[in-house]
Amino acid sequence: MMRFLPGSVTLVGGGPGDPDLVTVGALRALRAADVVLYDRLAPLECLAECRDDCERVDVGKVPRGAFTPQERINQMLIEHARAGRVVVRFKGGDPFVFGRGGEEWQACAEAGVPVQVLPGVSSSISVPALAAIPVTHRGLTQGFSVVSGHVPPGDPRSSLDWAALARTHATLVVLMGVKNLPAISAALLEGGLDAGTPATVIADAGTPRMRIVHATLATVAEAATREGIRPPAITVIGSVAAPGLLG
Amino acid sequence: MMRFLPGSVTLVGGGPGDPDLVTVGALRALRAADVVLYDRLAPLECLAECRDDCERVDVGKVPRGAFTPQERINQMLIEHARAGRVVVRFKGGDPFVFGRGGEEWQACAEAGVPVQVLPGVSSSISVPALAAIPVTHRGLTQGFSVVSGHVPPGDPRSSLDWAALARTHATLVVLMGVKNLPAISAALLEGGLDAGTPATVIADAGTPRMRIVHATLATVAEAATREGIRPPAITVIGSVAAPGLLG
Ligand SMILES: C[S@@+](CC[C@H](N)C(=O)[O-])C[C@H]1O[C@@H](n2cnc3c(N)ncnc32)[C@H](O)[C@@H]1O
Ligand SMILES: C[S@@+](CC[C@H](N)C(=O)[O-])C[C@H]1O[C@@H](n2cnc3c(N)ncnc32)[C@H](O)[C@@H]1O
Repeated sequence: MMRFLPGSVTLVGGGPGDPDLVTVGALRALRAADVVLYDRLAPLECLAECRDDCERVDVGKVPRGAFTPQERINQMLIEHARAGRVVVRFKGGDPFVFGRGGEEWQACAEAGVPVQVLPGVSSSISVPALAAIPVTHRGLTQGFSVVSGHVPPGDPRSSLDWAALARTHATLVVLMGVKNLPAISAALLEGGLDAGTPATVIADAGTPRMRIVHATLATVAEAATREGIRPPAITVIGSVAAPGLLG
Repeated sequence: MMRFLPGSVTLVGGGPGDPDLVTVGALRALRAADVVLYDRLAPLECLAECRDDCERVDVGKVPRGAFTPQERINQMLIEHARAGRVVVRFKGGDPFVFGRGGEEWQACAEAGVPVQVLPGVSSSISVPALAAIPVTHRGLTQGFSVVSGHVPPGDPRSSLDWAALARTHATLVVLMGVKNLPAISAALLEGGLDAGTPATVIADAGTPRMRIVHATLATVAEAATREGIRPPAITVIGSVAAPGLLG
């Protein structure tokens, strides 16, 4: 069992938003915390577990300024730990899946602040599941790739090879890809992925506003636009995304 | 909040083994269960949450016979549900990550038995995290692929394109790949992945027997053999697996 010591930082994954999908360890961490720095996408109901005297800081709201928000968050984590507090960094999903947990860990380590991670239920697997899509399925797929769609294919900042991703035969799970869905589907088609490959967009999973749009690789960008899909959303591309696979 | 109704089946992910990494919903499900069918890799301590009169069945022990174990498990799920029980299928990690959850769901659905899934913390992300390896890291990788190494590259039963996997620039996370590590690393080298790419094997994560072996793509198969690594283990291949990345 993990211990939450004064002067240390724990990076805690809060799951995709549903209070059922928070871990026992995350609740223990929140109860032990002197200060919690939390994100917009973390399950905010769980903050009710914090002690009355626990300081709760919404770092989703930090305005962009001379320093990037991330640098300011790193600094806050270090300062609170140096003041001898039990510091919890509470995030949506898992801290190491596009959560910048690695950077926060490095910043703490460089400052000599003890840091540990408590993994969470990542939206990359659980959001498809909430739409009855298994990311792997015997006879259909022996793997899945989780990629960021934040930077469009071909952009100099993109390090992914989308043509290779089109050919792995693994399910493709795209996070942060709503805006770039036209460019992403075009790159996958150009890479040779079949135009008829099932493609499903899932938005606001685990909330009353949850939306599921079934389409194909050829039609998904248009379908998402037509249905007015907005972030947070995940697109699953592959045979497992076929409507009614699980019956 | 999910409800656990008599006559229904809930597929529950139990996380990688650490009781801190079980979800609140999983504990609620175990407390509500009339019968729990559990796996070897599920966190067994949590079965203490079950009511005294709850029937606990270790389906990891079902011997191979005329029927495959999976078919027998499917049948048991259906029979218990038809008898009006609250049925919980308790698994390691997440039910839809190489967990055959999709097949169990299909079997229930075909039999007219209501079925639902409660995602869990998958070992595919949390086992690397327990070794201080973030599957994504800003500036290093914009995605990760989780693949089964159960079937070796080139085998007719393999549906993955390992040459494509070698070129995505995403982190590669190989489950069930201890035995086939020589064939897997050879296929990735042949696909063009650099021989010096960091490759780390993590065995028995979250237990006192946890082992971490740091190597490169060229040396990892030999290193795992030399260190006597045995399943369950996960191999992470990519720049994020470099020793001491997080400091
Ligand atoms: C910055 S990433 C963080 C992911 C998080 N660390 C995890 O493991 O789930 C945020 C993205 O996750 C996805 N996401 C998170 N929660 C979601 C939800 N409830 N419904 C749909 N997508 C979600 C969306 O793609 C969103 O843009
Ligand atoms: C049949 S798969 C099931 C995966 C599970 N459904 C999940 O999401 O974690 C079993 C594989 O998961 C990996 N695994 C599970 N628990 C592990 C642990 N504690 N340490 C290392 N690897 C583990 C190993 O690769 C093992 O062969």
